[in-house]
Amino acid sequence: MKKIIIASTSTLHNSGYLEYLLPTLAKHFEKATSILFIPYARPGGITHDEYTEKVRKAFTTIHKKVTGLHEFENPIEALQQAEGIFTGGGNTFLLVSELYRNNIMESLAKVVNNGTPYLGTSAGSNICGLTMGTTNDMPIVYPPSFRTLGFISFNLNPHYLDPDPSSEHMGETRETRINEFHKFNPQPVLGLREGSWLEVNNDSIVLKGHLTARLFKQNEAAIEIAPETELNNLK
Amino acid sequence: MKKIIIASTSTLHNSGYLEYLLPTLAKHFEKATSILFIPYARPGGITHDEYTEKVRKAFTTIHKKVTGLHEFENPIEALQQAEGIFTGGGNTFLLVSELYRNNIMESLAKVVNNGTPYLGTSAGSNICGLTMGTTNDMPIVYPPSFRTLGFISFNLNPHYLDPDPSSEHMGETRETRINEFHKFNPQPVLGLREGSWLEVNNDSIVLKGHLTARLFKQNEAAIEIAPETELNNLK
Repeated sequence: MKKIIIASTSTLHNSGYLEYLLPTLAKHFEKATSILFIPYARPGGITHDEYTEKVRKAFTTIHKKVTGLHEFENPIEALQQAEGIFTGGGNTFLLVSELYRNNIMESLAKVVNNGTPYLGTSAGSNICGLTMGTTNDMPIVYPPSFRTLGFISFNLNPHYLDPDPSSEHMGETRETRINEFHKFNPQPVLGLREGSWLEVNNDSIVLKGHLTARLFKQNEAAIEIAPETELNNLK
Repeated sequence: MKKIIIASTSTLHNSGYLEYLLPTLAKHFEKATSILFIPYARPGGITHDEYTEKVRKAFTTIHKKVTGLHEFENPIEALQQAEGIFTGGGNTFLLVSELYRNNIMESLAKVVNNGTPYLGTSAGSNICGLTMGTTNDMPIVYPPSFRTLGFISFNLNPHYLDPDPSSEHMGETRETRINEFHKFNPQPVLGLREGSWLEVNNDSIVLKGHLTARLFKQNEAAIEIAPETELNNLK
């Protein structure tokens, strides 16, 4: 049994950190009094303490305590005892490197597959797919592998951005990049726009939020997926 | 002695492939009758043959023959015998993976350091820096290392894009990403806008084109660098 929220972003334009998700999170984490936060992705390079403090403030409004995984001497034990787990956004290369360096990728997968409620945003969502191969982030550190948690049988592209038809910039669009990915990798890629998230309950995977998501499959034209679509057979 | 052109992009908006650079390239490669092209970065996943054909057409206008490195049984020998070398853009992760897989990263560095004229555009420019850690590309394949050719003692960010103040997208700006890079890596990063290139002649490194470039140093505010600035002491 799995209970997972995979969000494109933590923050919407003109809204507070996690604000749009808080009603959903109050229900998602209803049995937890405390959330274990994984601060490894360090957005903008902020410290683990600074990042954990930011998350603590947001979760106070739904009456949850927050502890940072970096505060524990034994992170595997901390994961095993957690009532709920949140991995925040930042740099996916850094996050994946630190999960491997601390030897907890496997333990994290295990406890979440066994039912510990999990929330990921941005980089913390990227790692829910089969690999981090469709992240938008800059490769600022070299991880020992691109393989990630595989809670879903496809890859994600959070913060999905539609091509800007007025742009004169010659860098690749997001769609071009994902099509390149499919020249070398078979798994589908779901482009999650900011404000969208997936809710995973056991074998059910449902698109939530008001926006459509863009689904890319190898050798097929991309299509738009409506909110409330079931994606459990996507692989 | 080194003779290198490191260009942000192959193509400007509303202009043909390499068109804006051709007068410069005619001079840069004046002693070469034939150019060895490294097609490994495969933009949009096109084949080595397709990519080489595109480059062949562009170089015909300045009367140079083009051969693809993939056409040779012994790529190291091909590099050693080349009169001029061009590495085109595409995906930097793929390019670096293929350079290592074919065991030619070292040979390429050696012949260019010994004077074979080199041109890089986009991904082919990224590899001229110390590492590929400031590429904009998607990690579609896993390279054995992020270390690259080190023709210059800093890193590059080709296709440099200024932040869009009207954007409501919450993904990181290029400047934010480069600042994150500097939390973990000491070397300067030069953001090269489309239309800019570096000319390296022995120890001289000069910014060319009409635009300024944006220079990021660890623990310093970013500054704009004017065309014709000497960057030989940048490290």
